[in-house]
Amino acid sequence: MVQVAILGFGTVGSGVAEVLTKNREILARKAGQEISLKYILDTREFPGNPFEEKLTHNFEDILHDPEVKVVAECIGGATIALEFVKKLLAAGKHVATSNKEMVATHGHELLELAKAHNVNFLFEASVGGGIPVLRPLAFDLAGNEITEVAGILNGTTNYILTEMLEKDAAFDAALKEAQAMGYAERNPAADVEGLDACRKVCILSALAFGTHVYPDQVSTEGITSISAEDVEAAASAHMKVKLLGRTLRTPAGKVCSFVAPHFVPVTSQLYHVDSVFNGIVVRGNAIGEAMFYGPGAGKLPTASAVVGDMIDAVWHLKERRNLDWQEADPTAMADFADLALPYVVRTTASLAEVEAALGEATALAAGGYLLKNPVSRRAIEESGLTLLAVRPVFQ
Amino acid sequence: MVQVAILGFGTVGSGVAEVLTKNREILARKAGQEISLKYILDTREFPGNPFEEKLTHNFEDILHDPEVKVVAECIGGATIALEFVKKLLAAGKHVATSNKEMVATHGHELLELAKAHNVNFLFEASVGGGIPVLRPLAFDLAGNEITEVAGILNGTTNYILTEMLEKDAAFDAALKEAQAMGYAERNPAADVEGLDACRKVCILSALAFGTHVYPDQVSTEGITSISAEDVEAAASAHMKVKLLGRTLRTPAGKVCSFVAPHFVPVTSQLYHVDSVFNGIVVRGNAIGEAMFYGPGAGKLPTASAVVGDMIDAVWHLKERRNLDWQEADPTAMADFADLALPYVVRTTASLAEVEAALGEATALAAGGYLLKNPVSRRAIEESGLTLLAVRPVFQ
Repeated sequence: MVQVAILGFGTVGSGVAEVLTKNREILARKAGQEISLKYILDTREFPGNPFEEKLTHNFEDILHDPEVKVVAECIGGATIALEFVKKLLAAGKHVATSNKEMVATHGHELLELAKAHNVNFLFEASVGGGIPVLRPLAFDLAGNEITEVAGILNGTTNYILTEMLEKDAAFDAALKEAQAMGYAERNPAADVEGLDACRKVCILSALAFGTHVYPDQVSTEGITSISAEDVEAAASAHMKVKLLGRTLRTPAGKVCSFVAPHFVPVTSQLYHVDSVFNGIVVRGNAIGEAMFYGPGAGKLPTASAVVGDMIDAVWHLKERRNLDWQEADPTAMADFADLALPYVVRTTASLAEVEAALGEATALAAGGYLLKNPVSRRAIEESGLTLLAVRPVFQ
Repeated sequence: MVQVAILGFGTVGSGVAEVLTKNREILARKAGQEISLKYILDTREFPGNPFEEKLTHNFEDILHDPEVKVVAECIGGATIALEFVKKLLAAGKHVATSNKEMVATHGHELLELAKAHNVNFLFEASVGGGIPVLRPLAFDLAGNEITEVAGILNGTTNYILTEMLEKDAAFDAALKEAQAMGYAERNPAADVEGLDACRKVCILSALAFGTHVYPDQVSTEGITSISAEDVEAAASAHMKVKLLGRTLRTPAGKVCSFVAPHFVPVTSQLYHVDSVFNGIVVRGNAIGEAMFYGPGAGKLPTASAVVGDMIDAVWHLKERRNLDWQEADPTAMADFADLALPYVVRTTASLAEVEAALGEATALAAGGYLLKNPVSRRAIEESGLTLLAVRPVFQ
């Protein structure tokens, strides 16, 4: 039997407690021994809650209990959670977390700390919620030279964009609907401005290319500027507007990471990822292309991923998983503005004016023009055209 | 440095050799040490081939070489390949294979043998080609009680069905096209009669539910009976005809495994899996539903999965992965004919006659009727209706 603890009894933490309890027999079989929940750390009281007797307000109870081998960090943020995780790893405890902010900003440091203390630091739940994607990327596809990872990484924005298309709604109305449904927070900035997707891109990039990428190294544009005209222009070309996070190897061998609303053609599997779901495409020189699809958030799906990591840690209590990456290298990063991509521009200009400035193009609805040849965003911005929207096309 | 060998220098074996060579530096980083290809076993000569110097005709060279720790079995079939794999595992060598026939018919026995000798027997490539699905099912989703696995598991039949829909072609014409494109073999029986999908269902079922399922325990129907009218009836209900392999837990707690052409609604991600691609849906009590999509066959994609297993084996040379299942238990299996599912029937009968026999229904094109309530196949066959086609609907 191995004893475990949960830090934080919010949505994810209570989901982890629920899965550990209701699937106890399955977990014992998969982990090779019983997994017993000993503590839940939270500052709050939960009178009458079935897990009330596991509650502690004192982190030291967990840190100094030699029976506790694996801890699920479900507090979130990169302040108190970071301090706790560092102490746990240094104390020789394995940590599983859903905390994308902490991994995106301190992943390299925490993996080094885990390595120094011969424990595992696992974070499958930090990207794609319950979808298995980080472990497949790191292990199943380890034989590949990865060329790109691209995904719909934020369910809130995907819900809003799906609503805008299906109900012919403006952004503000779709956001209100998402808030009413509980899919968007009252302060939706982290989602709609792309920060959440940006953090996930950092983690995917580090795993795909072996070098840490910090959020400020990712060109990030959210969906607040998406208009009904964008949606209309996309539809006229059998495309949908989707917020994609991407990290790819440029022809010059650099890494370029960015978050931006894209036009996604019907021929891509990502076109069919709607509502609150996430989908992540991985491209490699042996696999070609694979996609991972599922619920990108939610109590039990996220808990599924955290508990999967806890089982992995129990199975690898003594031998670490081979999971790490190098410190960030700004010189190895390419500027998104210089990356040549297929683009759609929306402009008041005529087809002839667009073609004179940017080469051959096809006119779409709502003032959109699909450029035939890849160009850089910088070239578009310096074209002298009056631009209403500049959207890369996912290919 | 660890030495490895490949059995069989056909499509998959040569792909494994290629990936081991061209991605050598990446593999060394992921495996923690260099992976060096020492032998390739084949009965044939390959004069002038860049791997010619690795070739041996003598299996004993590999079996008795203590330097060889990991072997990729790429011969196929369950005769000579089985004999070799048993000897390798008994000699303490780790084995990775793409051989679905061998795993479906001898998986339990081989996993027990691997356990007895403290080595790994891995077979990610046996289902879904290059798509990471078995390891995510076994490890990432280990915290779930799995309720169903369902997938488009055979690229040849999916290509044929896609052609039938998009080109309005009959089965025979679409098969000829698939043969001309190299997607179907001259003798396409194993694909079009469902045997290939059946073997993959056996493997998925064993991993999902922990008990071996043999091919003769899987109700298997291929696509040879699919007509243009089936395709038309499906399209009229916003569905596509897809050959699905499924294994699920019945309400009575038994396991039911089957391969059959289904009507798949546009609301399912599997609807969007076309041409030679595969897609596998996994449902569990925490994740809800996830899907894994990608190339289900092909030289390099399959090699991607085999090499991923080889890296995993190198990382776990001393500590095994927790991968096993129990011997088959026929008493735990439910008969597909008794499983209540949503169905479409095609018949010469009228709506009134269909409803009198099978309850409320909606008329589709081409004599199709979508039954409102789940019924068993047995009930449909005993309904007295003149049946042209009986197709479960995937929900």
